[in-house]
Amino acid sequence: MSKFYTVAVVGATGAVGEKMMEQLEKRNFPIQHIKFLASKRSAGKTIEFKGQTYTIEEATPEAFDGVEIALFSAGGSVSKILAPEAAKRGSIVIDNTSAFRMVDDIPLVVPEVNPQDLKLHSGIIANPNCSTIQMVCALQPIKEAFGLNKVIVSTYQAVSGAGADAINELKDQSRTFGDTKNAEAQVLPVKSANTHYPIAFNVIPQIDIFDDNGYTLEEMKMINETKKILHMPNLSVAATCVRLPVVSGHSESVFIEVDKDGISVSDMRAVLESAKGIKVLDNPAKQEYPMPLFAEGEDEVFVGRIRKDLSNDRGFHMWIVSDNLLKGAALNSIQIAEAMIEEGII
Amino acid sequence: MSKFYTVAVVGATGAVGEKMMEQLEKRNFPIQHIKFLASKRSAGKTIEFKGQTYTIEEATPEAFDGVEIALFSAGGSVSKILAPEAAKRGSIVIDNTSAFRMVDDIPLVVPEVNPQDLKLHSGIIANPNCSTIQMVCALQPIKEAFGLNKVIVSTYQAVSGAGADAINELKDQSRTFGDTKNAEAQVLPVKSANTHYPIAFNVIPQIDIFDDNGYTLEEMKMINETKKILHMPNLSVAATCVRLPVVSGHSESVFIEVDKDGISVSDMRAVLESAKGIKVLDNPAKQEYPMPLFAEGEDEVFVGRIRKDLSNDRGFHMWIVSDNLLKGAALNSIQIAEAMIEEGII
Repeated sequence: MSKFYTVAVVGATGAVGEKMMEQLEKRNFPIQHIKFLASKRSAGKTIEFKGQTYTIEEATPEAFDGVEIALFSAGGSVSKILAPEAAKRGSIVIDNTSAFRMVDDIPLVVPEVNPQDLKLHSGIIANPNCSTIQMVCALQPIKEAFGLNKVIVSTYQAVSGAGADAINELKDQSRTFGDTKNAEAQVLPVKSANTHYPIAFNVIPQIDIFDDNGYTLEEMKMINETKKILHMPNLSVAATCVRLPVVSGHSESVFIEVDKDGISVSDMRAVLESAKGIKVLDNPAKQEYPMPLFAEGEDEVFVGRIRKDLSNDRGFHMWIVSDNLLKGAALNSIQIAEAMIEEGII
Repeated sequence: MSKFYTVAVVGATGAVGEKMMEQLEKRNFPIQHIKFLASKRSAGKTIEFKGQTYTIEEATPEAFDGVEIALFSAGGSVSKILAPEAAKRGSIVIDNTSAFRMVDDIPLVVPEVNPQDLKLHSGIIANPNCSTIQMVCALQPIKEAFGLNKVIVSTYQAVSGAGADAINELKDQSRTFGDTKNAEAQVLPVKSANTHYPIAFNVIPQIDIFDDNGYTLEEMKMINETKKILHMPNLSVAATCVRLPVVSGHSESVFIEVDKDGISVSDMRAVLESAKGIKVLDNPAKQEYPMPLFAEGEDEVFVGRIRKDLSNDRGFHMWIVSDNLLKGAALNSIQIAEAMIEEGII
């Protein structure tokens, strides 16, 4: 990694964009030159990075001239218009939105899981959905060791996935203990929808809007992205995605069925313990298991509560937790860039 | 219901005991005479019921002389000693603890599900665990209509199930927004354990202590009680039980597999809509689905997010919510007594 790169960050002022900047600094990403791009409205404002002040430029197609790595996190509609323009100008786009994730020729990558797909890019790499990333990190080593034929996940997702507004609303509503039913709600489950519900002391079984099939788009993302990343188009995957009054850190209760008979909990634990990016936290005797409050700010995907189904020898249950803004978003994007540099693709 | 009964409430000052008294009053239960029993420590204190003041008596074996219906909710150790004494004296004991639930000859009853078991009693009827009750209310009509062979549930449980201390702790910790990691914790996941974690803005994947098999006792309760209530000893049931920063109202993400092929979501919805005690709240277009904040204080078991598994024609997912202190505990106990009166068993 002796070369240094010209990097653009699109959407630096959002919740994920801020974490991207933190990660670029923390991981000492090899930056020659960096620019910050945003909508016309935000252009001209200033932003701090590594102790220097930068003026935010308008994100026009021409702004990507000379940019080698473009990190997009400004919403799907911005990516749809500008990511192809950036790619056309020779930038490698790493896009954190859902705009290109399910496009056939565009790699959807978690570096620990399917780094080989990075080579197939045509200028754009898609970063998967937060809830998908942490789950596939655990599923991939299991698939390799024991085979995998079924996944049923119920999620416990934090509000930070819905942005800074959702965090503020949770904070405000938390003061209404005992009378939250009547608390003001304007953000969740979906800001642009007509109906909003309080999230404090509540559970909302809706993330993103509904598809015609009764699943939410978040659930369909988990189902479809998991199959694509694992290269298992026929894998049986089901998801129920649920929003909780948690600031950051998504949790997942995951049931899997493996292909091999006779696998023990220790076998499963051993495979996960040696997997890249995973930290097994699983000691019932000491009440050790992953929790979102303690995963916040951490890079790893934490796995615990690993146990065998009591009726199905090939069935296992586990509890997977990770910081949705880090491995679930910003960190994974930077790791994609690092992997491409390491493989000589950029 | 023209007869009136002598009733004893054991543990009236607890969270469930209070709700029992509310239900007795609200449902105009046919009471001739009522007495309130507690440990020696609480004896002599007074308690209000239907505008009258009662002095709490010590719960001794002799205190049950003449009692026709004894409602127990004072912890398993109290029930283990005193419930048989009360039964010996001719009381019908309805026990809300886990003391007798899995004892072979003792009926474990949800009146909408297995009222026929009430006739088999020998003086003690067990009230199931809160998280089990609401789930079997939905499973029973499905089993009858379509057959049932698999259940996988992940719960989203409120703190009120752990008592008034847990509610107060959630309230206090909720004020520490942004710094909850360091908040004082003394109650959850298990008060008597050495290690406690904050519940505000967190998710704790432990309810009750751990069994040697890696499951918690709460999970084993759901698994074993469901099989017993449904009279399906070989049903494949799996549970992951999780505590959330919610005051009251348990939610459950439930996957089921039915025996019949070709069942549609409308078929499933129709069966649940005509089931006793169930209210289907399932209109994605209007963002209608059950949520604990709005189930609090309601008698029904709410079911929504009913959808078909995308890989398994016999698989369905649903979201089940109910007030854990009402249908999950106090209300079900009173309904057991009412059903016994109606059937002429008491």
